[in-house]
Amino acid sequence: MGSIFGQLFRISTFGESHGGGVGVVIDGCPPQLPISAEEIQLELDRRRPGQSKITTPRKETDTCEILSGVFQGKTTGTPITILVPNKDTRPQDYSEMATTYRPSHADATYDAKYGFRNWQGGGRSSARETIGRVAAGAIAQKILREVANVEIVGYVKRIKDLEAPVDTDTVTREAVESNIVRCPHGECAQQMIDLIEQIRREKDSIGGVVECVVRNVPRGLGEPVFDKLEADLARGIMSLPASKGFEIGSGFSGTLLRGSEHNDPFYPDEEGNIRTRSNYSGGVQGGISNGENIILRAAFKPTSTIGKSQETVTSSGEATELAAKGRHDPCVLPRAVPMVEAMVALVLCDHLLRDRAQCHLFEQEGE
Amino acid sequence: MGSIFGQLFRISTFGESHGGGVGVVIDGCPPQLPISAEEIQLELDRRRPGQSKITTPRKETDTCEILSGVFQGKTTGTPITILVPNKDTRPQDYSEMATTYRPSHADATYDAKYGFRNWQGGGRSSARETIGRVAAGAIAQKILREVANVEIVGYVKRIKDLEAPVDTDTVTREAVESNIVRCPHGECAQQMIDLIEQIRREKDSIGGVVECVVRNVPRGLGEPVFDKLEADLARGIMSLPASKGFEIGSGFSGTLLRGSEHNDPFYPDEEGNIRTRSNYSGGVQGGISNGENIILRAAFKPTSTIGKSQETVTSSGEATELAAKGRHDPCVLPRAVPMVEAMVALVLCDHLLRDRAQCHLFEQEGE
Amino acid sequence: MGSIFGQLFRISTFGESHGGGVGVVIDGCPPQLPISAEEIQLELDRRRPGQSKITTPRKETDTCEILSGVFQGKTTGTPITILVPNKDTRPQDYSEMATTYRPSHADATYDAKYGFRNWQGGGRSSARETIGRVAAGAIAQKILREVANVEIVGYVKRIKDLEAPVDTDTVTREAVESNIVRCPHGECAQQMIDLIEQIRREKDSIGGVVECVVRNVPRGLGEPVFDKLEADLARGIMSLPASKGFEIGSGFSGTLLRGSEHNDPFYPDEEGNIRTRSNYSGGVQGGISNGENIILRAAFKPTSTIGKSQETVTSSGEATELAAKGRHDPCVLPRAVPMVEAMVALVLCDHLLRDRAQCHLFEQEGE
Amino acid sequence: MGSIFGQLFRISTFGESHGGGVGVVIDGCPPQLPISAEEIQLELDRRRPGQSKITTPRKETDTCEILSGVFQGKTTGTPITILVPNKDTRPQDYSEMATTYRPSHADATYDAKYGFRNWQGGGRSSARETIGRVAAGAIAQKILREVANVEIVGYVKRIKDLEAPVDTDTVTREAVESNIVRCPHGECAQQMIDLIEQIRREKDSIGGVVECVVRNVPRGLGEPVFDKLEADLARGIMSLPASKGFEIGSGFSGTLLRGSEHNDPFYPDEEGNIRTRSNYSGGVQGGISNGENIILRAAFKPTSTIGKSQETVTSSGEATELAAKGRHDPCVLPRAVPMVEAMVALVLCDHLLRDRAQCHLFEQEGE
Repeated sequence: MGSIFGQLFRISTFGESHGGGVGVVIDGCPPQLPISAEEIQLELDRRRPGQSKITTPRKETDTCEILSGVFQGKTTGTPITILVPNKDTRPQDYSEMATTYRPSHADATYDAKYGFRNWQGGGRSSARETIGRVAAGAIAQKILREVANVEIVGYVKRIKDLEAPVDTDTVTREAVESNIVRCPHGECAQQMIDLIEQIRREKDSIGGVVECVVRNVPRGLGEPVFDKLEADLARGIMSLPASKGFEIGSGFSGTLLRGSEHNDPFYPDEEGNIRTRSNYSGGVQGGISNGENIILRAAFKPTSTIGKSQETVTSSGEATELAAKGRHDPCVLPRAVPMVEAMVALVLCDHLLRDRAQCHLFEQEGE
Repeated sequence: MGSIFGQLFRISTFGESHGGGVGVVIDGCPPQLPISAEEIQLELDRRRPGQSKITTPRKETDTCEILSGVFQGKTTGTPITILVPNKDTRPQDYSEMATTYRPSHADATYDAKYGFRNWQGGGRSSARETIGRVAAGAIAQKILREVANVEIVGYVKRIKDLEAPVDTDTVTREAVESNIVRCPHGECAQQMIDLIEQIRREKDSIGGVVECVVRNVPRGLGEPVFDKLEADLARGIMSLPASKGFEIGSGFSGTLLRGSEHNDPFYPDEEGNIRTRSNYSGGVQGGISNGENIILRAAFKPTSTIGKSQETVTSSGEATELAAKGRHDPCVLPRAVPMVEAMVALVLCDHLLRDRAQCHLFEQEGE
Repeated sequence: MGSIFGQLFRISTFGESHGGGVGVVIDGCPPQLPISAEEIQLELDRRRPGQSKITTPRKETDTCEILSGVFQGKTTGTPITILVPNKDTRPQDYSEMATTYRPSHADATYDAKYGFRNWQGGGRSSARETIGRVAAGAIAQKILREVANVEIVGYVKRIKDLEAPVDTDTVTREAVESNIVRCPHGECAQQMIDLIEQIRREKDSIGGVVECVVRNVPRGLGEPVFDKLEADLARGIMSLPASKGFEIGSGFSGTLLRGSEHNDPFYPDEEGNIRTRSNYSGGVQGGISNGENIILRAAFKPTSTIGKSQETVTSSGEATELAAKGRHDPCVLPRAVPMVEAMVALVLCDHLLRDRAQCHLFEQEGE
Repeated sequence: MGSIFGQLFRISTFGESHGGGVGVVIDGCPPQLPISAEEIQLELDRRRPGQSKITTPRKETDTCEILSGVFQGKTTGTPITILVPNKDTRPQDYSEMATTYRPSHADATYDAKYGFRNWQGGGRSSARETIGRVAAGAIAQKILREVANVEIVGYVKRIKDLEAPVDTDTVTREAVESNIVRCPHGECAQQMIDLIEQIRREKDSIGGVVECVVRNVPRGLGEPVFDKLEADLARGIMSLPASKGFEIGSGFSGTLLRGSEHNDPFYPDEEGNIRTRSNYSGGVQGGISNGENIILRAAFKPTSTIGKSQETVTSSGEATELAAKGRHDPCVLPRAVPMVEAMVALVLCDHLLRDRAQCHLFEQEGE
């Protein structure tokens, strides 16, 4: 029951690493939005394996097909189905994993919960599942751009202890896409790439932090008390594979400040809008967007599947060792960037529709 | 539409700081659970204002009344309504806040979203709203204890930069409740109390980190891919007032390790259970509980309402200054502990029911 | 988990016949709607017991109190809680029902499901539960009137075999309220009243049909394929106590016609609107409102609690007889009218918000 | 937002008459259920066009493919995707319908709501959409059989005014499938077939009533007050194309009886179970199944697309006439039988899981 996300812009993802394919059904997309498979493909290409020397060598073009919900180049308001068939599957590579649990992977817990699992390539716990999210996120991003010129820019902020200084006001997707690690600071990016390559040679893995800024967010998104914007963003981010932490605005470091330092002073700008001088809040106050940039960070742990030998058990509970074969990323961060952006877009788009429904009813009618 | 939480154990909270009262309706509670207002009151007393010299002096007994859903001391399976009337209300204390926005508080965003707000005592954005959560959490905790002896222990891990060493395997609620700051390490607790008192005298505020450990968690809770256990925990925690960050297991610091260090090696214990030697995962792998302790942390910012004078604007957009009157906590952490425990209990109880529904259907019938 | 209704205008009802009270929490109500307890009370008075000689003599004023969500006479957008305390409770009247199941009542099934029930006055299965629906429906009706001048008029169409001719284009609530049976045809009404009184004297009960017409419905409400307008209306109506059937437009009798007779011919009216010459569709085509009057009918069975002696069993499974004491209606129809109207209003209001969210997004922004 | 159905056994259907295909994603299916495409195909074959001389001649094999969620012949507990590609599409047949609205069809309302529609073959409003329901229903039926030997038998009860006597205790699917109109009474069936053929020759259409009996229903399914079993069954049935009415048990005719006639007397059977002597309740009391047969009826109007010339308008609002081309059924009833059974199965399966979650928690643990 956990594969549906959103209240109004509602997505249902499906598919496993191996099998017929992976994809998504989007229910509740506004009609008359121009959209093409090509636009969606652009985002999928940023997520796909084999895109560079620092990602998994699995060769998937991840070519998407729109099965329903789009007619004459526009959404019809009915469910949009996007399918990406699996191509480069090698179930034999994973035969050992049928019976030997990878430490810190989902193998053992899936067996514990379901009594059974599709062990080929990680099955449903494979990062291939995120294809459906990224495809749906591409449509959500387009809606946000059309309605309010919302810009979502994610990037690698830190790999292990290599942290890049990034200006959230000015960072662009072009800068992010200018290198294969998706860090907009060129010098740091090169160091990160070198580190990832070294770690790969050592058959090990590393993690880091993705930061994401959203500009031009409409005021008023988020629904207290449980569906606060940061709560739904946290849920979206923490549902991504390998995520271990979430922060908005000042996050954990904000707890080191006093209130008088941390509070964002209000001032009226020249057009009479209420703005804040600092942005420790990260664009959200009381669970509702305040029009400032939303800034969030997600911690991704080092990939659990590694080539080094590790202590583990078999599915029948016997102690053994495992040095994983198969193809995997030494560091998920570069490919996590479009996933983070997708989840952020899905949450914001859903809340945009929700806000329009509840809080703009009477004004609409007055026009 | 944001005041309902949970899929099967579903709560609907209501009420504002000032007005008829606050409370919760719980829909989907299993029948035949023995429960009394006294048991619920124990948790509410840990949350209530005025409980110690380091909390807000607002005098509320927060006495709860069960209006429905319990008959002859047991739940009936129908909606349970718990009401806490408001008593010590002083709307006049907040009259200035009707027109002057507190920096980093919800005043301005509520007005932006709803065009209007109940400004008395913060209205719906007041921490009084969490009464409903804590009351429902008391019932959820009881279910978890009855079914699987689940223990949830939250505590103050850090106040500003004062961090306490705590052993998650052995920490008890008794130790937590042995002092007013709810830090189980006595020496650190005293330093924290001193710091909070000093900050209060300076009309300022501070934040910190609450950590929570859950022991005896059944294996198999959590529903990939969106309703992963850590995703729903993150949503629950990040929906609490003043929260800015969430971590599970190793969290952000786990990103500094290599996979070979971070992976939790599996081993079979003496009873043949699959256990892990370390617990960087924090009790959750692939979004599903693995039977190890769940360990999570929540960052709470310094209280935004402070007595110091700050730059701000009026609701009509004019620059002004505000030194807040009214009653407020210099540090929310001590009272946040039962709130965190409540959200954790609500998420776990909901997932317990969900897991029983989906993954134990055939075995039930076979018995 | 079954006491929550609606997707965006979402209500959560609570309470039993005996106990602290009954009521509703409404989550998602648009802000800034003027509303008073008095307006809600008007609808509750139409539902309350003891209102006339043909209803149950239980004496309840059903006086409502707004506990939250309304400030300075307007909705705030936060949860609205409406509570009606129970007053005239006589648990002793029902002591026999603690152990003896009323035939065709909910006594036995509640025990089978929950293993236990509040048997006082029917507990949760009492029609008192509908107080929350009617209170919420009053607010939904006001929204519909404010936004689109929607008129909802329900009335008793048939009592047993006494059927009244009613013109759905012109029937008014005033005509409906002009007599105690709520049938707008005066002559039929008197016959119905006489029949109900006779049946009451015979310690028996009767049923009938409520018809409801909705005028000025905006085009475009309803969400194929599962949340078609008639599907959600059917669910709402069939969730009312004692309902056994639902029809929209031509209903069951429409199955006797040929397509060429049943299809509603389209024509353009003078203002260029697309209208239909007949209305067998009942205002809904393909699950979406077409702007014509919505016409639906609900069948209500004869009240199951009767004074006549009947064959039944005890809760321990022994054969016995029961002649029910306690207070009950010989015919639920007159009081079912406001319940039907409330459910219709709740469904339409929810779909109004849903339609605004999905299908008016781009136009809003273009304006 | 209306293409998702169910709370725990949750289906999301997708697809249009013309385009990539139609299908369903099932989220929340219990793991370890043996299932094959062949089993699903059996149900799809009962629904598919071209199956007999009295259905539409569109030639679709409706061959299904399981894309995900099944591994080694068993469900994995992850989303099950079933896809049926469209084959025999003839968009040109429908070109007239791009601009001319079929009376009483969904053409005009889709345009009114979405501003736009896929007009090829009816797009999303085509009965092809029900393929996803029938496929998911096949799995739901299997679960119900495995867990409680539940039998669901639907059949044509009436075509226009030709009504068949059917014994709900003994009717079998074999009898239903013994003729092409799916009426288990052979003589009536032949009359119905003759009538449908005659109506087809006259380029007209007819409707009727499908009845459905469910045997061996577990006691305790259904969740008052809104998710009563009959309420969710009504919603499911009324969401089917062409449905105009729903009844459970005595339905509308039950309103002609007195309570003393209509109440179902209880008696203890030889095994000590509580049974009822009559079954006017239709297997549901107080919204909860009582273990007796569930009996329900659905009214289906005459097909709206007919070859006879009718008064209508164009999408630009001009008066015109339309004699529909394209392929359509003169009577939907024979093909509606598996659709009704599917919706009934989906509702019961969902409520089975919900009941297990809420009402069997403590007993499970006690075992």
